[in-house]
Amino acid sequence: MLKKTTKLLVASALVAGLSTAAFAKDRVYKWKLATTWGSTLSPFIDAPKNMAKLAKEMSNGRLDIRVDASNKHKAPFGILDMVKGGQYEMGHSASYYWKGKDINTLPFTTMPFGMTAPEQYAWFYYGGGLELMQKAYKRHKVLSFPGGNSGNQMGGWFRKEINSLEDLKGLKMRIPGFAGEVMAKLGLAVTNIPSGELYTSLERGTIDALEWVGPGMDIKMGFHKIAPYYYTGWHEPATELQFLVNQRQFKRLPKDLQKILVTAMRVAAYDMYIQNYHMSADAWSKIATDYPNIKIKTFPKEVMDAMKKANDELLVEKAKESPLLKEVLDSQKAYMKKAREWTKMSDYKYLKDNL
Amino acid sequence: MLKKTTKLLVASALVAGLSTAAFAKDRVYKWKLATTWGSTLSPFIDAPKNMAKLAKEMSNGRLDIRVDASNKHKAPFGILDMVKGGQYEMGHSASYYWKGKDINTLPFTTMPFGMTAPEQYAWFYYGGGLELMQKAYKRHKVLSFPGGNSGNQMGGWFRKEINSLEDLKGLKMRIPGFAGEVMAKLGLAVTNIPSGELYTSLERGTIDALEWVGPGMDIKMGFHKIAPYYYTGWHEPATELQFLVNQRQFKRLPKDLQKILVTAMRVAAYDMYIQNYHMSADAWSKIATDYPNIKIKTFPKEVMDAMKKANDELLVEKAKESPLLKEVLDSQKAYMKKAREWTKMSDYKYLKDNL
Repeated sequence: MLKKTTKLLVASALVAGLSTAAFAKDRVYKWKLATTWGSTLSPFIDAPKNMAKLAKEMSNGRLDIRVDASNKHKAPFGILDMVKGGQYEMGHSASYYWKGKDINTLPFTTMPFGMTAPEQYAWFYYGGGLELMQKAYKRHKVLSFPGGNSGNQMGGWFRKEINSLEDLKGLKMRIPGFAGEVMAKLGLAVTNIPSGELYTSLERGTIDALEWVGPGMDIKMGFHKIAPYYYTGWHEPATELQFLVNQRQFKRLPKDLQKILVTAMRVAAYDMYIQNYHMSADAWSKIATDYPNIKIKTFPKEVMDAMKKANDELLVEKAKESPLLKEVLDSQKAYMKKAREWTKMSDYKYLKDNL
Repeated sequence: MLKKTTKLLVASALVAGLSTAAFAKDRVYKWKLATTWGSTLSPFIDAPKNMAKLAKEMSNGRLDIRVDASNKHKAPFGILDMVKGGQYEMGHSASYYWKGKDINTLPFTTMPFGMTAPEQYAWFYYGGGLELMQKAYKRHKVLSFPGGNSGNQMGGWFRKEINSLEDLKGLKMRIPGFAGEVMAKLGLAVTNIPSGELYTSLERGTIDALEWVGPGMDIKMGFHKIAPYYYTGWHEPATELQFLVNQRQFKRLPKDLQKILVTAMRVAAYDMYIQNYHMSADAWSKIATDYPNIKIKTFPKEVMDAMKKANDELLVEKAKESPLLKEVLDSQKAYMKKAREWTKMSDYKYLKDNL
């Protein structure tokens, strides 16, 4: 009986034109992904975890990606280097974290006074944004994809109320990306700090203020215990995280696994946007009752005007540093101009009519 | 050499525990999907087409779904019946089209004065909405999934300006869903008409007014040539289309193909939301220059107040018809109450501060 089955199997295999390729098809690709985030930093850590789970299930186990949190690899801001160098096949982080290394990668996360999440996704997928992001990462031999959006972020936590530009001057603040450049121009001492060290840095006075994400992620970090003034957003209207993939490793995957990977990243990114919307809505609904000491504030007009002015000036200055950066900023500006008119006529007007 | 390879092949197959199951794994599932839409009705038709393409590529051809436009099956509003009856394994339509058959399926598309797209996606995926939708479709032995969002829709095209409630009375209007119920209560003669017949119906006077989607889809239909008054939205703040899957057929798929199908639907749905945002932004940006005869209007306060009042009354009335409908409406109401506060503090405030 066994003999007959064996014969049949061989015959079937030969008839089907299968050779060792049949088994190559079943080859398991064991990959590793390095994230900037701690192992429990939901929803940021959920995006790569969900992506890996989906890829594994859709590929019937053939694409098996291990997600390493930052406590494992100890290099939360070294994700690009590790993916570029091949220590990790993939990464999950925020592109603006390595603006000091390559300014061209900055604008793909978010820009102060820039696009909202649906506007920005439309720019990425239907307005040429994704192509520009691939262009920016090409010199690193890394592919990059949207990795999840935080939605509109809050402007950050301050120990004292900000009543004037003068109150901002000299403050030490954790604020990354282009917003960090804006704040530096306004006289703040700007720095970036990994999420796991934020609370301690604030507590010890290494920093006086910080922005992190929004109510869904911020409140459980406990910042309000030290810095209860919580400012509304201007600087990160739609922070998109990024998946990075080593180009050479990607090319080694069979076509179906490439498609599975790209799709898993795309859906995990959208899902994180929606997950954080939910988490923020949930946390926000309890803020007044559960955290009555938190004081919700908006920066005074003088400060907002100065931020806008500094931002406009910096956009002109920085564009001179790199033709590619100029191309990206011009593309974002043109797209936003178009999309914002529709946003105002659709969602904005609808919300206004139903306040 | 061949002999050795063959032996190795057999040995590997036995070691891997493969039998004829190895070949069952390569079985091709040829499915058919029926849509409500015409073959060129972008982006509605793109959602199922993109979904099918993704599923085929990710499964290496093992899940092969043919998408039939409405001109093929001639039953644009019969999608649920055809999926239920098994003539089609899948469908793509809008759940509110069969409210006359099963009122419980109505609220999963959109509700007047209801949730915006991110709020509604958060409700579906993190607020219990998807579970309620599956519950509503269970008696039809059909699975249902979000199928793409139009974003905020425009309130429709009218031949004459609407200056009072009186101007609405007696008008024959194409308007589906709960908004149709509201308009009927205000004295309109309400009907639903497939997209391919809309222009002719308006031209011939079968209807006096209609709502379709938004600038991205409406303008190329030519409605403005007959009915140039284009009203802003109140009635469909986030119209989600639906994928339907015959439950029995779904269960027959291997686990990996089930996951591929569900993921392909999920990403195609999100993508359609973003695609339509792009198309609307694009069309809107040209409306003043290319279509100067289109008159953008908002319904007067008297009319909006009457719509809101009728909507509130109908929500109470309809909830009495079915405990499940009540459960869904209560869930939407509670979720929207929570999510809207965050929307107002985040995107809405950000847009307002940057007008």
